[in-house]
Amino acid sequence: MSKGFRTFCPEKNTWNTTLYFPTPDSFLNDWEQKIDATQQSYSALEPVERAKFLLAIQEELLLDEKQIQMKYCAESGLARSRFEMEFARVLHTIQLFASHIEAFQWQKRTEISEQHKSLLKKRIAIGPVLVMGSSNFPLAYSTIGGDSVAALAAGCCVVLKAHEMHLGTSTLVYQCILRAIEKCALPSTVFSHIVDNTYKWAQTFAQHPKIQAIGFTGSIRGGRALMDMAAGRRAPIPVFAEMGSVNPVVVDASIHPEKISEIAEKLAFSITNDAGQFCTKPGLILVHSSHQQLFEKTLLTHLATQTAVPMLHPDIFQKFEARKRAVLKVKGVSAKHAAHQQNGILGLWCLALTDLSTLIEHPSLREEVFGPFALLSPYDTNEDLQDLFTCLDGQLTLSLFTNETQTLHPSLLQFAQQKIGRVILNGVPTGVSVAEAMHHGGAYPASSDVRFTAVGPDSMLRFTKEICWQIHH
Amino acid sequence: MSKGFRTFCPEKNTWNTTLYFPTPDSFLNDWEQKIDATQQSYSALEPVERAKFLLAIQEELLLDEKQIQMKYCAESGLARSRFEMEFARVLHTIQLFASHIEAFQWQKRTEISEQHKSLLKKRIAIGPVLVMGSSNFPLAYSTIGGDSVAALAAGCCVVLKAHEMHLGTSTLVYQCILRAIEKCALPSTVFSHIVDNTYKWAQTFAQHPKIQAIGFTGSIRGGRALMDMAAGRRAPIPVFAEMGSVNPVVVDASIHPEKISEIAEKLAFSITNDAGQFCTKPGLILVHSSHQQLFEKTLLTHLATQTAVPMLHPDIFQKFEARKRAVLKVKGVSAKHAAHQQNGILGLWCLALTDLSTLIEHPSLREEVFGPFALLSPYDTNEDLQDLFTCLDGQLTLSLFTNETQTLHPSLLQFAQQKIGRVILNGVPTGVSVAEAMHHGGAYPASSDVRFTAVGPDSMLRFTKEICWQIHH
Repeated sequence: MSKGFRTFCPEKNTWNTTLYFPTPDSFLNDWEQKIDATQQSYSALEPVERAKFLLAIQEELLLDEKQIQMKYCAESGLARSRFEMEFARVLHTIQLFASHIEAFQWQKRTEISEQHKSLLKKRIAIGPVLVMGSSNFPLAYSTIGGDSVAALAAGCCVVLKAHEMHLGTSTLVYQCILRAIEKCALPSTVFSHIVDNTYKWAQTFAQHPKIQAIGFTGSIRGGRALMDMAAGRRAPIPVFAEMGSVNPVVVDASIHPEKISEIAEKLAFSITNDAGQFCTKPGLILVHSSHQQLFEKTLLTHLATQTAVPMLHPDIFQKFEARKRAVLKVKGVSAKHAAHQQNGILGLWCLALTDLSTLIEHPSLREEVFGPFALLSPYDTNEDLQDLFTCLDGQLTLSLFTNETQTLHPSLLQFAQQKIGRVILNGVPTGVSVAEAMHHGGAYPASSDVRFTAVGPDSMLRFTKEICWQIHH
Repeated sequence: MSKGFRTFCPEKNTWNTTLYFPTPDSFLNDWEQKIDATQQSYSALEPVERAKFLLAIQEELLLDEKQIQMKYCAESGLARSRFEMEFARVLHTIQLFASHIEAFQWQKRTEISEQHKSLLKKRIAIGPVLVMGSSNFPLAYSTIGGDSVAALAAGCCVVLKAHEMHLGTSTLVYQCILRAIEKCALPSTVFSHIVDNTYKWAQTFAQHPKIQAIGFTGSIRGGRALMDMAAGRRAPIPVFAEMGSVNPVVVDASIHPEKISEIAEKLAFSITNDAGQFCTKPGLILVHSSHQQLFEKTLLTHLATQTAVPMLHPDIFQKFEARKRAVLKVKGVSAKHAAHQQNGILGLWCLALTDLSTLIEHPSLREEVFGPFALLSPYDTNEDLQDLFTCLDGQLTLSLFTNETQTLHPSLLQFAQQKIGRVILNGVPTGVSVAEAMHHGGAYPASSDVRFTAVGPDSMLRFTKEICWQIHH
C-alpha cells in the first residue's frame, strides 16, 4: 500500500494532519473504458446545458464556501481576504463562461450554389483535457480554475491533477463538482480528480492517446517538460502552459516628480502582495535616471510598510531563496532589503539594484525570481533600453508609467509587439481582469502558444477545434 | 561556387534546361539586418493597405499569366486546364483575404469602470513566417498559395522556400510579388524567395529566432521533421503542417443500387484526377457488402476510362511505386489494375481489394499512398467499422454516401468528432472550396494543429496573436 502524504500550513509552519493517498493504478482502466462515451455525450450537450452545469458547480461552491475557505487558508497561508478575492474570481469566471457559450457563434455557413453544396463549420470540443492544478492559485487556476472552466465550457472532459500542496481545497472543490455532475445527471468521468505527489499520473495522462490538450500554470521547467512530452507523442497535442515572466516596468522621464511616490507605492504593493507569488508580479523596474534617486528612496519606504506573508510552501520558499541568492551574487547587483523578520515570517521582500549593462550581460538576471523580489535599474534613453529588450524573453506584461500615452517610443512598441501579452499604461501588472478583451499570455516562455490567452472567454478556443460538414444536394 | 540544378518536365520525361542556384549564404546576414524593421513597418499597415498590396500581386499575376502557365505545365506535367483551375484559385484566395481583412474584427474592448481601466485587445501579426512551397500545388499552396496569402494578410513578412521541382514557376510568381512590393513602396524583405535543393535553408529558417511560425503542405515525414525542429528550439514556435490522409469513403447500405454507378464514376475521377496527387484523394473505400460486387465492377469500368497523367516528378513516382508495392505484398490484399500503359505514361491507377480485418492488422495499409491508388474493402455493419475507426489516424476528410443524412450512426459520428476535419455527405473529398466555412485540417497527422484550418479566411488566425492594451485613467 502506498504511503500517505500531507499538505503544509505556512501560517503555523507545520504539516497539516490529514493524510492523502495517490489515485490507485486501477483508476486508469476504468477511465479508459468510459472516456470515449463520456466525451461524446458531454460534448453533444447544447451550450445552454453546459452553462447549466457550470452554474450548478457555482451553486455547490457557494454552499461549501466556509469549509473551502478554512482549508484554503490552512494549506496556503494566504489571508481570508485573498480567499474572498479568489473565490469571487472563480464565481465570476463561471458566470462569464456560462453566458459566453450561450452567445458564442458555434457555426459558420457558406453556400456554394454553382456546385450545389453547402458548408457548415461547427466549433466543437477538442476532446479530453489534462489540467494541472497550479501552486499559486489554489482556486482560480486549480481544480475549478480558468483552465477547467474553459475546458468544460468547450465541451471537454477534464482530468484534473490536483496540486499536491492543496489537496484538501482541491478535494472539497471536486466534491462540489461531483454534486453538480449528479444534479445534472452527467457521467462522473466528465471530471476526474487525480491525487499524486509524484510525476507519475501527470506523465501517464500527458502521454495518453485519449488526452487531446493540456492546460498548465507554473514554472518554465514544469511547462517545458509537458511541452516536450506532448511534442514527443506519436500524435502530438497542443499544450497551453502559462509560465514565467519578469514583467518589466518602465517609469519614463515624462512622469512628474510629484507622481513618483504614488507610483512607488503601487509597485511596492504589487511586488510584495501575497508574498509576490503572482505570475504578473513586477520583477524588473527600469526607471529613468532623472527619477532614480527619488524612486528608489520612496520605493524602499513603501516596501517597508508592507505586511509580510509566508510563502505557499517550503519548496517555493527554498526556490525563492536560491534564486535570490543567485541574483545577488552577480557582480554589479546590490541588495536593499529589510533585514528584520516580521512576526517570525521569513521570505520578506528584497529589492536589488543593478544597471543595464549588467542586466544584458547576465541571463540569470532576466529570469523570474518567484516571490517578493524586484530588480531596479536606471536608464538614460529609450535607445539604451533597446539592447535590453532584444535579449529579454517573452513576457506576460510590460508596464509603462508615462505622461506621453499617445505615442509610444518605437523601441517600446517593437518590444510590445514581439514579446508582450499585455501592455499596461500607468498601472501595475498584478490584478488580471477576467474579461473578453483580456490577453493573458505572451511570447515563450510567458506562454507556450502565443496565439491563445489563459484568461477570459477567448481562452476556451485553446480547447476547441472545428469540423466542416459539406453537404451535396 | 555551388552547382546549379534543374527542374523536371514529366510530360517529356526530361530535365528542363534552366539552371537554378541556391540562395547564397550572404543572404542571411542581409535578411537579419532588415527583418525587424520590415516586420514592424509591414504589420503597422492598416488592413486596407495590406489588402491593396494583395490585390497588386493579383494584378501582376494576371499580367504574367501566360508565362507562368508555360513554366507551370513544363515543370509539373499538369494540364493547362489544371493550371487554369489553380490560377483561378489563387486569384480567388487573394480576393477573399483582401475583403476579409478589411471586414475582420481586429479589436475587442472591455471597460472596467470601477477600476478606472479599459482593456483593448488587438489581433496582430505573429511575426515573420517561413512558408514551404508544396510539391503538388505549384501555385495554390506554394509561392503565393494559401499559407503565403494568409501570412501576408495577417501582416507577417514571409520567407518562402520554393519547392525545388518548380523553381521556374516560383521565380515568375516571386517577380510578380516583387513588382507589387515596389508599386506599394514596401521594403523587399516583406517577401523573401529562397532557392535550395537541400534541407539547409529550411533548417536555418525553421530554427531562426526571428521566424515565429511555419506553414507547410506535404508528407508526414517532412511535416513532422519541421514540427520536431520547432518544438526543440529554445523558444518553440507554432507549426502548421498539412500532411497525409487516406480520406476514407463509406458507401452505406441505404444507397439505392441504381446510384452505385454514378458514385463509382465520381470516385474513379477523384482517385485518378491529376494522378491522384491531392491531399484529399480518397485512398480507402468502405462499401457495404450488399453493394460490393456491383461497386467494384463499375468502379473498375470507370477507372479504365480515366486519362493517364504523369506524376509530378521522378521522386514522387518512385515513392508511389514503393508504397504501392508495400501495400500489395501484404497478405489479404489483391490488386486490380490496368496493366497497359497509356501514351507511354507510367504510374497508372491501381485499385486494391482487401477486408476489414486485414486493414486492422496492418498499419501500413492505413497510411497514405500518394498517387492514383485506392484500397477497397467491404463491410457488413457500422459496428464492424468501429474497430477500423479506432485504429485509423486523424484524417482531412471522411466521405459518406448515404440516403440517411439526418442521423449519422454513433460510430461514424464519434470517428468524425475525434479525427476528421471535414465530413462530406454524398460527395467526393477532392475539390476543397476556399470559403469561410471550410475546414481543411484534422487530427494528427492530417494536420499538426487540429485547432486551425489551412484553407479559407480563418487560416489567417494561424499567423496572428493578440495583445491587450490596458489603460488606467
